[in-house]
Amino acid sequence: MFLVQSFGPPVNEWLMELLIMLDAAKRASAKRITVVAPYYPYSRQDKKGRGREPISARLVADLLKTAGADRVMSVDLHAAQIQGFFDGPVDHLFAKPVLLDHFVRTLSEEDRAKLTVVSPDTGRVRVADQWSDSLDAPLAIIHKRRDPNVANQVTVNEIVGRVRGRVCLLVDDMIDTGGTILKAAQALKENGAERVIVAATHPVFSDPAVQRLQDDAIDEVVVTDTLPLPADKMFPGCLVLPIAPLLARAIHEVFVDGSVTSMFDGAA
Amino acid sequence: MFLVQSFGPPVNEWLMELLIMLDAAKRASAKRITVVAPYYPYSRQDKKGRGREPISARLVADLLKTAGADRVMSVDLHAAQIQGFFDGPVDHLFAKPVLLDHFVRTLSEEDRAKLTVVSPDTGRVRVADQWSDSLDAPLAIIHKRRDPNVANQVTVNEIVGRVRGRVCLLVDDMIDTGGTILKAAQALKENGAERVIVAATHPVFSDPAVQRLQDDAIDEVVVTDTLPLPADKMFPGCLVLPIAPLLARAIHEVFVDGSVTSMFDGAA
Amino acid sequence: MFLVQSFGPPVNEWLMELLIMLDAAKRASAKRITVVAPYYPYSRQDKKGRGREPISARLVADLLKTAGADRVMSVDLHAAQIQGFFDGPVDHLFAKPVLLDHFVRTLSEEDRAKLTVVSPDTGRVRVADQWSDSLDAPLAIIHKRRDPNVANQVTVNEIVGRVRGRVCLLVDDMIDTGGTILKAAQALKENGAERVIVAATHPVFSDPAVQRLQDDAIDEVVVTDTLPLPADKMFPGCLVLPIAPLLARAIHEVFVDGSVTSMFDGAA
Amino acid sequence: MFLVQSFGPPVNEWLMELLIMLDAAKRASAKRITVVAPYYPYSRQDKKGRGREPISARLVADLLKTAGADRVMSVDLHAAQIQGFFDGPVDHLFAKPVLLDHFVRTLSEEDRAKLTVVSPDTGRVRVADQWSDSLDAPLAIIHKRRDPNVANQVTVNEIVGRVRGRVCLLVDDMIDTGGTILKAAQALKENGAERVIVAATHPVFSDPAVQRLQDDAIDEVVVTDTLPLPADKMFPGCLVLPIAPLLARAIHEVFVDGSVTSMFDGAA
Amino acid sequence: MFLVQSFGPPVNEWLMELLIMLDAAKRASAKRITVVAPYYPYSRQDKKGRGREPISARLVADLLKTAGADRVMSVDLHAAQIQGFFDGPVDHLFAKPVLLDHFVRTLSEEDRAKLTVVSPDTGRVRVADQWSDSLDAPLAIIHKRRDPNVANQVTVNEIVGRVRGRVCLLVDDMIDTGGTILKAAQALKENGAERVIVAATHPVFSDPAVQRLQDDAIDEVVVTDTLPLPADKMFPGCLVLPIAPLLARAIHEVFVDGSVTSMFDGAA
Amino acid sequence: MFLVQSFGPPVNEWLMELLIMLDAAKRASAKRITVVAPYYPYSRQDKKGRGREPISARLVADLLKTAGADRVMSVDLHAAQIQGFFDGPVDHLFAKPVLLDHFVRTLSEEDRAKLTVVSPDTGRVRVADQWSDSLDAPLAIIHKRRDPNVANQVTVNEIVGRVRGRVCLLVDDMIDTGGTILKAAQALKENGAERVIVAATHPVFSDPAVQRLQDDAIDEVVVTDTLPLPADKMFPGCLVLPIAPLLARAIHEVFVDGSVTSMFDGAA
Repeated sequence: MFLVQSFGPPVNEWLMELLIMLDAAKRASAKRITVVAPYYPYSRQDKKGRGREPISARLVADLLKTAGADRVMSVDLHAAQIQGFFDGPVDHLFAKPVLLDHFVRTLSEEDRAKLTVVSPDTGRVRVADQWSDSLDAPLAIIHKRRDPNVANQVTVNEIVGRVRGRVCLLVDDMIDTGGTILKAAQALKENGAERVIVAATHPVFSDPAVQRLQDDAIDEVVVTDTLPLPADKMFPGCLVLPIAPLLARAIHEVFVDGSVTSMFDGAA
Repeated sequence: MFLVQSFGPPVNEWLMELLIMLDAAKRASAKRITVVAPYYPYSRQDKKGRGREPISARLVADLLKTAGADRVMSVDLHAAQIQGFFDGPVDHLFAKPVLLDHFVRTLSEEDRAKLTVVSPDTGRVRVADQWSDSLDAPLAIIHKRRDPNVANQVTVNEIVGRVRGRVCLLVDDMIDTGGTILKAAQALKENGAERVIVAATHPVFSDPAVQRLQDDAIDEVVVTDTLPLPADKMFPGCLVLPIAPLLARAIHEVFVDGSVTSMFDGAA
Repeated sequence: MFLVQSFGPPVNEWLMELLIMLDAAKRASAKRITVVAPYYPYSRQDKKGRGREPISARLVADLLKTAGADRVMSVDLHAAQIQGFFDGPVDHLFAKPVLLDHFVRTLSEEDRAKLTVVSPDTGRVRVADQWSDSLDAPLAIIHKRRDPNVANQVTVNEIVGRVRGRVCLLVDDMIDTGGTILKAAQALKENGAERVIVAATHPVFSDPAVQRLQDDAIDEVVVTDTLPLPADKMFPGCLVLPIAPLLARAIHEVFVDGSVTSMFDGAA
Repeated sequence: MFLVQSFGPPVNEWLMELLIMLDAAKRASAKRITVVAPYYPYSRQDKKGRGREPISARLVADLLKTAGADRVMSVDLHAAQIQGFFDGPVDHLFAKPVLLDHFVRTLSEEDRAKLTVVSPDTGRVRVADQWSDSLDAPLAIIHKRRDPNVANQVTVNEIVGRVRGRVCLLVDDMIDTGGTILKAAQALKENGAERVIVAATHPVFSDPAVQRLQDDAIDEVVVTDTLPLPADKMFPGCLVLPIAPLLARAIHEVFVDGSVTSMFDGAA
Repeated sequence: MFLVQSFGPPVNEWLMELLIMLDAAKRASAKRITVVAPYYPYSRQDKKGRGREPISARLVADLLKTAGADRVMSVDLHAAQIQGFFDGPVDHLFAKPVLLDHFVRTLSEEDRAKLTVVSPDTGRVRVADQWSDSLDAPLAIIHKRRDPNVANQVTVNEIVGRVRGRVCLLVDDMIDTGGTILKAAQALKENGAERVIVAATHPVFSDPAVQRLQDDAIDEVVVTDTLPLPADKMFPGCLVLPIAPLLARAIHEVFVDGSVTSMFDGAA
Repeated sequence: MFLVQSFGPPVNEWLMELLIMLDAAKRASAKRITVVAPYYPYSRQDKKGRGREPISARLVADLLKTAGADRVMSVDLHAAQIQGFFDGPVDHLFAKPVLLDHFVRTLSEEDRAKLTVVSPDTGRVRVADQWSDSLDAPLAIIHKRRDPNVANQVTVNEIVGRVRGRVCLLVDDMIDTGGTILKAAQALKENGAERVIVAATHPVFSDPAVQRLQDDAIDEVVVTDTLPLPADKMFPGCLVLPIAPLLARAIHEVFVDGSVTSMFDGAA
């Protein structure tokens, strides 16, 4: 059976609900239980940044296993290594085809020619690089640096790559409070970017994300609905693409013992 | 190390927080971790009442184990069998000495002579029986029966035992919405009880408990603080006894490899 | 496959035999093994009554799992929480329909009108309450009390509820040495009960049960054959109802992936 | 802590008792539990001889682990590979020094010169070989062969090696019903052996061992008390050596984190 | 699915390759994985000979399980107890029918009449005994003894049984460096054996086995290809029988849920 | 106890040796075993790149656990998420302080002023960013792009950031065959870099790394000895810094229950 669970806030409510459903299914003799979690909860706590920290993403994998999950399906894990946290098959889906298709269909030829893919920080450059490759557009990255001109000031956002006069596509796997994305967009505009479009899979949208994403520095936001977006988190200039068709196809492949990974051949 | 966690609402928040703390402690090489949960979460879902139900209390035990708990300490488990859900040592503490001590000290000799211990339903009679024994007072129980005089009416609360003119002490392990307790108190008063005192360990106090417990049928409520009681759940006629001294003694016993059960010799 | 095991004395012989059969079945590549234990061994040791005690009922569940059991089916577990001791599906059957059907068919209308259901102690009142509800008969309970008239005497059996002139149906899940049942029956007769009938699921019948159950205070005993009754444990006035039809139906439901719990809808 | 358990009949009683004690010790927070089983139960069922058989010796190891054992100590395992059945440290003690010391002290020089060590079947020749080496005596073995002179007759006991006029020391790890040993002794006498002495560690002595071992073909039996020998199993010509000193030394070594194997340097 | 792995040197390469394949198969949702290992790696390290030794054969079983194996099939385990190391079904195949068939077909009647089966050491006499039984030929064994004539000399190879003028068939489960086999063959020839034939299942053939096996004392060597034999390990007088037909039959039996053990009825 | 294992080629030999040592230590009752693996084997196979792939780094963690490891210590894991693969404490050490200290001590002030930190591909930019921050030097990255000028040509190495006239420090966690590093160095030189220095923690140095690293495009190579470098893999212009002092400090911290992470405060 498939248990599909969306992890909007409060995430712990949904997680415990899922664990309890798993226990009920296990005790009711379900033959094989696949958890479909479009957004994998606690996926950002996937390593110990310093001492005495938990690795919550591994804990979640163990809790799912303990409660009865045999297989897990998720979209755009914060780190692909999270696949290794679960002791069993993990189907890792990519929302990129969904988002990419949108841009290919809607960007004008002129915009395509001026397009630059931008990574908002140095930890996600690989993803931006893949977009750069798919869209055949140059790459730029933003990283934080101590300002050499100002004593004691912590950091400035430095841009590596050319963005002046470009249509900048900022790509990331999720938008939480929107802080990094907004600073990146502002740095791009300050450095002469013509337009800034933000594309991300998971709209976590913790406060004050909705406010930040409506800043003038950001011209457009495109996300998917791997997380439910209540009406008060919708805003003009934000487009939400449905993830359901992708999930449906993947569930079908699992159901008929087909290949989930073949869905992304030539894409990811 | 000891991780003491209180399970006020929302219970899932506190449970996940505890699990994440356990993971952090385990990964930081804690030698031995004892979870102190004055109130054991999901303790009422301790069996399958019908098909396709979870056994959430067992699930909680497994989650604690998975996250890293070596030992569990709790007060007045809804069923003593929950001790068997955890694969390791469980210290089962009883709040009865704390509550009993209060009544022994405060009840007048006259009231003691008129005291009857009452079980609010047929599933908790053993506990009432132990109180009856400790206080040397007679026992009564309340059970639901179909009213033979009214067609299609579901149930009336029938009292087994004598309560007319008595000071009735209704004892239970927890008060959730207060529905059962209120109906029991009303039935007692209707049958001539002089006074109704309610004693329980865990003040879950889900809505509309606070309102119900202030009904005229109930003269006094005595609970412990195994669950945090915010100011808006306090009301006149409700006394909250501190559970901390009991926990402190038990933690001390565990710490010095002493005996927790000896704390209750001759008491439980 | 289904492994049906009866747990007559010596119980450890049958338990080890079952564990060894499970190991053989597991190593012979059985796809899925369901243990059918009409009587669950060690079911009364389901919690720690005091310190340094085992929880043997949980241990049995773990041993079954270790040896290879995937699923367990049993009748009238001493505590329903034992379902949570096994890490997998548990089918909990109830013998009440079998016993109840007998009384409905055989009791005269006059007896039905005089019927009172009696719980022999305070720990099993819930079960008596369910019988009271099914038979639409009043409830009484027996509990031990220190005799206030005699110094140093430990206990007398006090009856809560009316029994004078009544046909008393004493219900319990099992009869071991018969001590509690006999004392209860005697107390009932001393308090004016017209007749005492004993109904129980599991005839453990340890010595001197057979002798005690033939006491004048007990008029009739009705049990099932969840435990084998050798000829020398049979006696006049003891009726043994077959449990096999119930098991057969439940095994059929499991075999066809049907619902075992639906068998008891409206009954338990 | 150390749990010392003797496995006289009925073996399943003692085994379940041990498992329940382990559970109690585990739930009472024992730091580290070592099971001392002088005789390892079910040690002869250590492999599948044919299809659909259990491997009970492995099952016992798993049951001990499940119930809470951290370490196991035993004497003369039927196969040394049983050490690998338990997932943890196993201390394998040898009774040979105890038995050997007896013969070295009591055999006359004349007997020593005529001594031949005999293996009663082909599965235990290694053990006899070690005795042969320790006593500097020649080796003989007995094996079953189809009699070429008689059609349809199953087997005769054929002796490989010289035994005429020799003092034959038949060595084995255990004596169960004594059938193999008696046939071996008879074959030795028929082939001219002067005297037959039987030495074994574990006196299982199932019926009719005691009768068989008193046959004229056997002159002397020497065993240890790894299994309790009730008075009715003692007989003239049977000497029982105490195993306790060996166990005591091994337990001491474990207790002080010393080396158990060093006890047997140069001996086994 | 079936994963067939041959364990030629370097064995650790093949073992890790197998474990990684198992992990891949498990993560790709294989329903049930049977490892077919004609030669079980580390099978000789199946017990602790002295302190601080590993039991590598058990470790291999645990590693296979951890990586995802559900069932194991192997030929002529060094000790049958290794079946008990794996927590699941183990199919233990015997190469004896394959080897035996060869000798039955090729030995002259004259040779058959002079045939003696010889065990090269005292640890493998059971196997030689089974051959002796199948071929209806007498048995001899070789064991090491301290030479009583020479001070300080460690051992001579003593022969128990008659070999003069006999065609000796030395049987063993594997040939590693060939040292034991060569010494046995030389002792046989020195004691008047007419011819020495060596039969073994697993041609490990570590250096300098190939050189030793070509010694004049050995007239013929017959093995199977459970281990791959590269060209430089082939030599005149060495016959390699294919094991594939046996494996194929066994895999077929597993595939159709038939009986593997029935393949050896009346044979092993 | 601490088991320190170096993983030079052939890696499977060292891995199996470590697993076998763990088994021996576990069976010899080691209290707590910490594996010190300066280089974590199979660390690059930490996710499924496409379908039917293993996650070997997780498999290694499970094998270590199965064999008996309680804790793991390693240097510069290819992905920090590998910490989450092991079910227990993981001490993640960083070689950066060792390497950084070398450059701070040896680079001239002039070189420091011209220094640019370069990431050889888009997957490791975070690490380069940290170096950039520690050395207060600008950042550049190299990524592969399809050449828009040539049909069907796969990729060119495009440099994002300024490198003309700069001293380029190429940083990576490991050097395997050196292909990526050499292409990066050549691209840097072609774009006007004055000097190219390569810094990496793990000198895997598979063929033809040694040859490639001596190319004119690379002026200097600095590594640590987390992997043993045999004499034939040493070459002029390659400096090997000892990792032992770092390990020694970390082992000391674990031994005294100190804090390993505090070693890197303000550094990583």
